Amino acid sequence: MKVKVVSKILEANDRIAEENRKRFADAGVTVVNLMGAPGAGKTSLLERTIRALSPRMRIGVIEGDIVGTDDAERIDSLNVPVVQINTGGACHLDANMISEVLEELPLKDLDLLIIENVGNLVCPAEFRVGEDMKMMVLSIAEGHDKPLKYPLMFRESAALVLNKIDILPYMNTDMDRLRNDSLAINGDLKIFEVSCTTGEGIDRWTQWLTGLMS
Amino acid sequence: MKVKVVSKILEANDRIAEENRKRFADAGVTVVNLMGAPGAGKTSLLERTIRALSPRMRIGVIEGDIVGTDDAERIDSLNVPVVQINTGGACHLDANMISEVLEELPLKDLDLLIIENVGNLVCPAEFRVGEDMKMMVLSIAEGHDKPLKYPLMFRESAALVLNKIDILPYMNTDMDRLRNDSLAINGDLKIFEVSCTTGEGIDRWTQWLTGLMS
Repeated sequence: MKVKVVSKILEANDRIAEENRKRFADAGVTVVNLMGAPGAGKTSLLERTIRALSPRMRIGVIEGDIVGTDDAERIDSLNVPVVQINTGGACHLDANMISEVLEELPLKDLDLLIIENVGNLVCPAEFRVGEDMKMMVLSIAEGHDKPLKYPLMFRESAALVLNKIDILPYMNTDMDRLRNDSLAINGDLKIFEVSCTTGEGIDRWTQWLTGLMS
Repeated sequence: MKVKVVSKILEANDRIAEENRKRFADAGVTVVNLMGAPGAGKTSLLERTIRALSPRMRIGVIEGDIVGTDDAERIDSLNVPVVQINTGGACHLDANMISEVLEELPLKDLDLLIIENVGNLVCPAEFRVGEDMKMMVLSIAEGHDKPLKYPLMFRESAALVLNKIDILPYMNTDMDRLRNDSLAINGDLKIFEVSCTTGEGIDRWTQWLTGLMS
């Protein structure tokens, strides 16, 4: 019974996701659904990415949080269009939430729309929002055991950004195991190692992102 | 419609949680629902706690993960009773999952049962499992903005364990803001600062935990 309800919710979600996807395609904007655990550094990666690519690349952002506008304010200060969604309690964004805010964004004037999902390694991976691709950020402080414990998100993502590598010398994280277990789940995963604090590795990441647009 | 479904699920859950609670009370075991984001250090805190208190205090553990048995194996090596629950995909434990494994544990021989929830700062706080109290672990690498972004978990918890303080010198985390925002949400919250890597702060935590039992 419970499974049936969930499956109906997912079907309804996918229908709206398809509508969003059509609107994105019509506007000619590439859409990334950016996921990761709380504190992985999703907003910090967004800030670094926008600083490196804007205004050459026209970027817009949708911020998903349960409550509050902190992240949207951080992005707004970089002078790119941003909309904050507050889910109220829900642990993920769904297609309908995205659909409801699309009119707030100048879609036709954007090259890239990044949707920052709620901090959570589980449910965001189950709900399509109309994106072209999913990507995830993982802080190396979270440890090397995450791919085997939260496999769906690794399987669904086109890219994995390993953040906070500046603190690697002080952690027990086994980077080889982290990389190998991620690739065992998803052999197509592009892996980037960055520090949003020092800026290390950001160039390679933004070059790859730029390549996706061309 | 969606809200109604969720509310029915929560009601059914609370009914089973009450049954679990009665079983725990009959067995004379104190039950803690331990929550936190992926990689906060929940299992590491469990290991430190068991090493400090067992066998003087008789501790049992239920490990909740989406897939895998890594955490249960870590606890099993410490020679305390442990059961692994795999949720299959669900991002939290619910009362029924707990009810189904209780026969696997020697409840009457335990002083303390710790239920390690799925790594997630959102949904675990919504689902009672029959616990006496909820507690949460937060890695200081997750940043100081978590209380305002995930308030329910801070509100529901009796204790907040701030883990990984050994890497504080290398982080930009504002500990005063983290503490103040946590207490603004929940003035009764007991806050502990620990490093499960170095063992710093573990004594104060285990002393407080022991005090709860007496």
